[in-house]
Amino acid sequence: MKKLPDISQDVSQWYNEVVYKAELAEQSPVRGCIVIRPYGWALWENIKSVLDARIKETGHKNASFPLLIPESFMKREAKHVEGFAPELAIVTVAGGKELEEPLVIRPTSETIVHYMFAKWIKSWRDLPLKINQWANVVRWEMRTRPFLRTTEFFWQEGHTAHTSKEEAHEEALLMLDEYVKLAQDYLAIPVIAGEKSATERFAGADATYTFEGIMMDGKALQMGTSHMLSRNFAKSFEIEYQNKEGVLENPYLTSWGVTTRLIGAVIMTHGDQKGIIMPPRVAPIQIVIIPIYRKGSEEVVREAVQELYSKLSKKYRVELDEDDSKSPGAKFYEWELKGVPLRIEVGPRDVENKSVMVGNRVTGEKTPLELDGIDAAVGGMLEAMHTELFDRAQKRLKDHWKHEAKLDTFGPAMDKDAGAYQTGWCGEIACEDKLKPFKGSIRCVLKNKSFDSCFACDKNSERDVLVAKSY
Amino acid sequence: MKKLPDISQDVSQWYNEVVYKAELAEQSPVRGCIVIRPYGWALWENIKSVLDARIKETGHKNASFPLLIPESFMKREAKHVEGFAPELAIVTVAGGKELEEPLVIRPTSETIVHYMFAKWIKSWRDLPLKINQWANVVRWEMRTRPFLRTTEFFWQEGHTAHTSKEEAHEEALLMLDEYVKLAQDYLAIPVIAGEKSATERFAGADATYTFEGIMMDGKALQMGTSHMLSRNFAKSFEIEYQNKEGVLENPYLTSWGVTTRLIGAVIMTHGDQKGIIMPPRVAPIQIVIIPIYRKGSEEVVREAVQELYSKLSKKYRVELDEDDSKSPGAKFYEWELKGVPLRIEVGPRDVENKSVMVGNRVTGEKTPLELDGIDAAVGGMLEAMHTELFDRAQKRLKDHWKHEAKLDTFGPAMDKDAGAYQTGWCGEIACEDKLKPFKGSIRCVLKNKSFDSCFACDKNSERDVLVAKSY
Repeated sequence: MKKLPDISQDVSQWYNEVVYKAELAEQSPVRGCIVIRPYGWALWENIKSVLDARIKETGHKNASFPLLIPESFMKREAKHVEGFAPELAIVTVAGGKELEEPLVIRPTSETIVHYMFAKWIKSWRDLPLKINQWANVVRWEMRTRPFLRTTEFFWQEGHTAHTSKEEAHEEALLMLDEYVKLAQDYLAIPVIAGEKSATERFAGADATYTFEGIMMDGKALQMGTSHMLSRNFAKSFEIEYQNKEGVLENPYLTSWGVTTRLIGAVIMTHGDQKGIIMPPRVAPIQIVIIPIYRKGSEEVVREAVQELYSKLSKKYRVELDEDDSKSPGAKFYEWELKGVPLRIEVGPRDVENKSVMVGNRVTGEKTPLELDGIDAAVGGMLEAMHTELFDRAQKRLKDHWKHEAKLDTFGPAMDKDAGAYQTGWCGEIACEDKLKPFKGSIRCVLKNKSFDSCFACDKNSERDVLVAKSY
Repeated sequence: MKKLPDISQDVSQWYNEVVYKAELAEQSPVRGCIVIRPYGWALWENIKSVLDARIKETGHKNASFPLLIPESFMKREAKHVEGFAPELAIVTVAGGKELEEPLVIRPTSETIVHYMFAKWIKSWRDLPLKINQWANVVRWEMRTRPFLRTTEFFWQEGHTAHTSKEEAHEEALLMLDEYVKLAQDYLAIPVIAGEKSATERFAGADATYTFEGIMMDGKALQMGTSHMLSRNFAKSFEIEYQNKEGVLENPYLTSWGVTTRLIGAVIMTHGDQKGIIMPPRVAPIQIVIIPIYRKGSEEVVREAVQELYSKLSKKYRVELDEDDSKSPGAKFYEWELKGVPLRIEVGPRDVENKSVMVGNRVTGEKTPLELDGIDAAVGGMLEAMHTELFDRAQKRLKDHWKHEAKLDTFGPAMDKDAGAYQTGWCGEIACEDKLKPFKGSIRCVLKNKSFDSCFACDKNSERDVLVAKSY
């Protein structure tokens, strides 16, 4: 097989090839859509199952809203239609006839969810209403990249309604916090959370919170967002309830989502020249067992690997690679490419010594391990790998993260070598726009204040911002 | 709340109302599409999780194929396009422009899956290839009913490729068998499995296997199908592999699916005048705990129900209904409507006696149960309810199931009172067509042979068929 492009020279090209070679996805015949292959989909299923449990534990219920939305719904909230109109895929013919009103494939479901909310919310007793949906959505993007930006993608979208602004705000921040935990505790990706500037807000939100990862090339990736929606949504869809005093009020709404882009973030954060590295807690395969046959002892080895497989697969996600058309070397290459955290090799001498050789995909080390007590030992190794991956990414994040007072200084550096720049900002779009020639943007507004003035003018800066190039 | 329509008089009207009143679904503003509400979606999630585990255990892997399919793909297999063309929803505009080639929203994914199979299958070593996808599909149906027939619905679609016809055939039957087990062992629905007649086959299949439930009004409901596809699919999509002798061959293909229609089957099989009845093994809520407060002892009861809740929810799906705006009577009514299998009432005297009162949704009985050992006791009750539900449905199936030699006899009866008729058939469409005036159809061809001649002519009958009206 052809080698992967040099990751230290061209991460972007490396990414484009590794996605297909590791069999995570495949290009489809439909523009901008990918086929997510079993290995990629299993990663998504694992991420989904972790997050779904948290969504339910925090009091949300899953439901399902239609894929198709009447075109007129999209137009009810002025900023929303402005934001999404250029990206819509529109059904004009169905059942052999031209439709009276075209239907759009949901680019996001606020409009149809709020239409239903208006039916369900009558009294303060119906609030808070906390709904989530796992779904596919379609946005006709101009430039697409597998997982990072595709025409159809998969996500969860939470939609909630509350009696007070404070409660809605807490909800938006709570879910942002859940996302940050998912990224850090399961994907082993350190992230920076903050608020989007007005320019980068969700179409129709009063505030958008984001969490951004800094990829290995120093570019930022928006990994998910949580929105405090404008009151216009509740008003446009006539969502009204009687408060405790019997007065009609509009509730406060939030929405929040993460997508299959998280798979892209995993690849872009943890990969190396050999391929991708799966974070152990969500890895589709945590351990691969490879038998090393020598003439005359095939049966002994076969029995040993099968016993080991049935022992370990009770606790871990294990693959036993018994494909006899491939050499052990070819198998090592393939499973390293696919980023399986642990590789266990079992040869006749290992069987004799009641031990095995374990290869660590993160450190590259090979360690002998006694068969006795191996199930606990590999558990410890997987946990250590999670920490190692996180620390490694954290270190790189710190290397990329610089404090700079003025665009004159960091602009050219950012343009050339990417990187994340913490700086001051006056809050005005005119200054924000000055980042464009350097291909940067404000990724988020932080809580800190370490600069007195804006990166581009002499006006005061209230809070720091994080500036970077982005995917 | 208004009473449900009389189920013994008009099941159909009862069904239409109970679906909404029990908050399983709600009509949406999009023609033929429903919103599946949390209570309905939780049932689907439970069904999905049972079946998904079986699909994986039988060696299939989940993946994801695009929602949108180039229109030309649909036309490659002649019978396939003929079957689906009238039902297609078509995207003609996207990203603000008319598309050069329109895209159809998948009504089923054979065409795009086979296009990808052609890329993945090169050698006999790549076979069998066994893929499954959980997805939404759209078919522009003329008459829709919540869950039973909706424009958009949810399903899993399995797609496999094999080197031999026998192996493919085994696969199609294996998955049919898994479906039958799902229906009987989890949904408590007895079913009849068999082969579809040529008229009722999937568009482009050589053989379609089906499993049919007989609903409480004696009408049949096709609950899912498994297909042995025609070789045309493999040929049209140029799926070719080198066999062990190095010769290029087309593989044999299957596909199989069950949908959110299963929810409709559950409602139509187990409901009664009080509402739906959830089969205990997949019930979203298996047990509801209702505190009965008396003045002065509120605190004692509150503590007791909370303790009971935390005990039982470790093992079961439990809801504690502490809504103090509703009387216990109103709560009983609501949870009966929603079909929660067990209701546990806890009042001050129960707390004193260290016992509770348990209501059984299937039998309607109320039994006192000691708090000591209650977690095992309710487990036993839930299992008994599953059996009771299945037996009840089985008995009704037998009541509806008659053996009749000639259409002259059973035709008018079927037209008037529905029912399932096992009879002989010569295999010819002309005779099959004679069922139409009586609103019946051949639901499936059975393995038995208990009649010498056809129900409509004097020609020989090789195998029995099951004839019924259907949903």
